[in-house]
Amino acid sequence: MRARAPASSANLGPGFDTLAVGLGLYVEVEVEEAEHLFVTSSGEGSDLALDASHLAARIAAEVVGHDRLSVHVRSDIPVGRGLGSSAALAAAAAAAAGAADPLAVAATTDGHPENAAASVLGGLVTATMVGGRPVATRLPLDPALVFVVLVPDRPLPTAEARSALPSEVSHADAAFNLGRMGLLLAGLADRRRLVSEAAEDRLHQGARGVLFPEAVQLMAGLLEAGALAACWSGAGPSLLAVCETVGAGRLRTDGERLLRLAGVEGRSLLLAADMGGLTIEA
Amino acid sequence: MRARAPASSANLGPGFDTLAVGLGLYVEVEVEEAEHLFVTSSGEGSDLALDASHLAARIAAEVVGHDRLSVHVRSDIPVGRGLGSSAALAAAAAAAAGAADPLAVAATTDGHPENAAASVLGGLVTATMVGGRPVATRLPLDPALVFVVLVPDRPLPTAEARSALPSEVSHADAAFNLGRMGLLLAGLADRRRLVSEAAEDRLHQGARGVLFPEAVQLMAGLLEAGALAACWSGAGPSLLAVCETVGAGRLRTDGERLLRLAGVEGRSLLLAADMGGLTIEA
Repeated sequence: MRARAPASSANLGPGFDTLAVGLGLYVEVEVEEAEHLFVTSSGEGSDLALDASHLAARIAAEVVGHDRLSVHVRSDIPVGRGLGSSAALAAAAAAAAGAADPLAVAATTDGHPENAAASVLGGLVTATMVGGRPVATRLPLDPALVFVVLVPDRPLPTAEARSALPSEVSHADAAFNLGRMGLLLAGLADRRRLVSEAAEDRLHQGARGVLFPEAVQLMAGLLEAGALAACWSGAGPSLLAVCETVGAGRLRTDGERLLRLAGVEGRSLLLAADMGGLTIEA
Repeated sequence: MRARAPASSANLGPGFDTLAVGLGLYVEVEVEEAEHLFVTSSGEGSDLALDASHLAARIAAEVVGHDRLSVHVRSDIPVGRGLGSSAALAAAAAAAAGAADPLAVAATTDGHPENAAASVLGGLVTATMVGGRPVATRLPLDPALVFVVLVPDRPLPTAEARSALPSEVSHADAAFNLGRMGLLLAGLADRRRLVSEAAEDRLHQGARGVLFPEAVQLMAGLLEAGALAACWSGAGPSLLAVCETVGAGRLRTDGERLLRLAGVEGRSLLLAADMGGLTIEA
């Protein structure tokens, strides 16, 4: 079987470990019975070891119950940039191997239910673990919103990004994020209500700034260039700008200019939200 | 002029200082020019001093610019029980006195933008302060949801409830509330998605439990009796159960039984969401 899953941006602004959106960049995985394990990979992530340690191979073998499989991966999702590549790969591999609940497999393997939920359900999602299981739901997303994503060439390992987080935060900062998350959900549902302050955050972006000091300047530049809101994508280093369809092409070009000005090697991508999520082809 | 504003439940589950819902219990305020300040009050809160210190008189005088006013208050909203009585009174008084932006007046006076927003906009709201001003938005609320509210006779002053809160929380607990808030908003928009865990909270209910130890048992009882979710209303001591229209009458009766069993004097009310918010009559 063959399955395809979209990339995703998680940790949207104040929505740490909770909000994510599926993006129109895809990974495709095909799994077939074979004499012995055989892994191929093309596109993004093709430099990873093509053996039993490959995430797609591990998941497919776990789902099927043995590893006499041929696993083919083709991906357009940059790896280690905060675009949910492993959650998407896990969801696609689980589905291609015939898993009954690819979301549960991907959320458990990857540890990020919100990335997994966006890759499986598509659109804007809220997700969290309840009693060890992912619970995820689609939330309304204004169809006239698109995304410009700045993708630095240099990866930022999620483990490193996570270890930068403080173990304690002030009660006021915790409440601050709740208030901003309410505004962000209202604004993503109806772009006329989206104020840039809705993407403000006090739980992760500031603490991670030391790992990517140019982020503050880049996000400010995106807002000045017309983005409605800007935030880190996942654990970074990619940055996400939310914008209206009209003018999005120019914002993408401005994103390239901003990267150059900041001396950051990388790409500026214009992506639509993926609304279809995981698709399976027998 | 005469204005009417609904009561509200704020701090809904995980939505500390952010989420609130307008409830079908009202306060009405009439303000007219007079020779000198004259205040009358009937219904709930009529035991408060009827002079220039009365919240409605203070707000009306501030809005009009002098205190040669006659101010009449009639309220069905119990005072000091976590039902947003002062935000509702402030909004109605500001509107009856002719304020251009009753929400701003009420949010600033009362300090709780979410209560003020629910009293002005009605329905389910998310609100927070942005640069010193309240920003508030309606969010979708399933029309087949109603509320059973347990209202203890004994008030719990908001200042006391607030001082019980810790100054720091773990990063994990802050993220926990974000995840639960996403689920709660999804569930309030579509009751078929409402899981009881969506109302779980780690920022205020636990810390305030010492002020009202029976709350845990009462909320568990409401869930056992069929509520979809249960949480504190505002800073307490009222408790809010979210339930379907069908069976709500029985849940209200069960609420009376639960109060008796817990040895808590009080009432159990069945209330619809108020969807009209502040209404003004010239």
